[in-house]
Amino acid sequence: MRLVRFIDPGSGLATSGRLEGKVVVSKSGSVPAKGAHLLAPCTPTKIICVGRNYAAHAAELGNEIPKRPLLFFKPPSAVIGPNDEIVLPRSTLIHHEAELAVVIGVRCRNVSTNDAMSVVLGYTCMNDVSDREAQKWDKNWVRAKGFDTSAPIGPVIVTTDEIEGPFHVISRVNGEIRQDGWTSDFIFSIPELIAEISSYMTLEPGDVIATGTPAGVGPLVPGDVVEVEIERIGVLRNSVS
Amino acid sequence: MRLVRFIDPGSGLATSGRLEGKVVVSKSGSVPAKGAHLLAPCTPTKIICVGRNYAAHAAELGNEIPKRPLLFFKPPSAVIGPNDEIVLPRSTLIHHEAELAVVIGVRCRNVSTNDAMSVVLGYTCMNDVSDREAQKWDKNWVRAKGFDTSAPIGPVIVTTDEIEGPFHVISRVNGEIRQDGWTSDFIFSIPELIAEISSYMTLEPGDVIATGTPAGVGPLVPGDVVEVEIERIGVLRNSVS
Repeated sequence: MRLVRFIDPGSGLATSGRLEGKVVVSKSGSVPAKGAHLLAPCTPTKIICVGRNYAAHAAELGNEIPKRPLLFFKPPSAVIGPNDEIVLPRSTLIHHEAELAVVIGVRCRNVSTNDAMSVVLGYTCMNDVSDREAQKWDKNWVRAKGFDTSAPIGPVIVTTDEIEGPFHVISRVNGEIRQDGWTSDFIFSIPELIAEISSYMTLEPGDVIATGTPAGVGPLVPGDVVEVEIERIGVLRNSVS
Repeated sequence: MRLVRFIDPGSGLATSGRLEGKVVVSKSGSVPAKGAHLLAPCTPTKIICVGRNYAAHAAELGNEIPKRPLLFFKPPSAVIGPNDEIVLPRSTLIHHEAELAVVIGVRCRNVSTNDAMSVVLGYTCMNDVSDREAQKWDKNWVRAKGFDTSAPIGPVIVTTDEIEGPFHVISRVNGEIRQDGWTSDFIFSIPELIAEISSYMTLEPGDVIATGTPAGVGPLVPGDVVEVEIERIGVLRNSVS
């Protein structure tokens, strides 16, 4: 299934639905997908992001390959949907980071690598918008990675019964390819990430694990349009202001 | 008002109420406070914690006084209530940290220091349970500070119309005083913290800002009972396993 959330034009309420061909189907009927006001397809209680999970990206920022996953949080307030605007904080340098987002399907804790895929609902696209200037002084990246609009997510969650990796992760700015990588280059696999994170904390349905970004990160400036595309999943497009 | 959340013995559901003398009053009636199953008094979408906000505590861990607030997140999954058990992760050294928690009352963004107190619902106690061993290798403290049960909160929120600082913050382990400080020693004031954080991210009702811990942090081991007391607010008591 291709799961979405959208504003139901009848009720005006945020509603869960399925994308089926050119229509969005929900309990209250179906509406054309074209023109539907899509929201982020999940409402995470927390977003756990992985840094430096592709060796080539760690190298481009001059970082060593981590021995254990480098993790950080984004808060729910950072989430925006497809087509929403990324509002840049005051900074001399903001970067896009295209990422495969893993969406959790069931409440879980202490999940083994063997069982890890059973707690995954599906996959979507995320842009880990990052303030490189703030990363220099903001020790835990709360401000560098947690500002409002720093977590565009969507447009759809493709469930694990329909799709499996490796995934081709691309970003474009104003139509020009910036990042182009494969999740087969992960340093830590999705089951390893789920096992590590869930050994410390309970994961809830809708929680997101953002799996890191491939090489090719670059600046965003007002007026840009940035796209995160993951083949077979979709294109997450946001303008920048 | 002294706000609580509790399990209503009639319905078995989590319910909001007010502590009035020796009874908890809610829409469904009143129950004796003694024996009531209290929960954390708020349900934060995010917890923003401040590190090194008392100069003496920064010094005891060998850290410099920060020029801007040192921030980190705890996820909602870390929250437990009064009398719930702190379950220690595998580590050679876990510390208690007694903190004044500021609970946000209204959705807000870009709040000035002048207006900051108007977005505060009230105050409660928090224990920022911390894995000192993990803090050495876990760059952004996701595992060191974000594990399940690492955020005991409660027992009551005292609203700002009833109380104002400075507050006397104490911790005890097995009845013995460990920390004893005053929020008048804050490096960054509550309005400064709210202005700084809300300049980056939207705060939601129930969100918590944990304002840092005074000197005297020390270890917790299984079997301990740890208390965070803030005079005029209450005592947050948790056993450790």
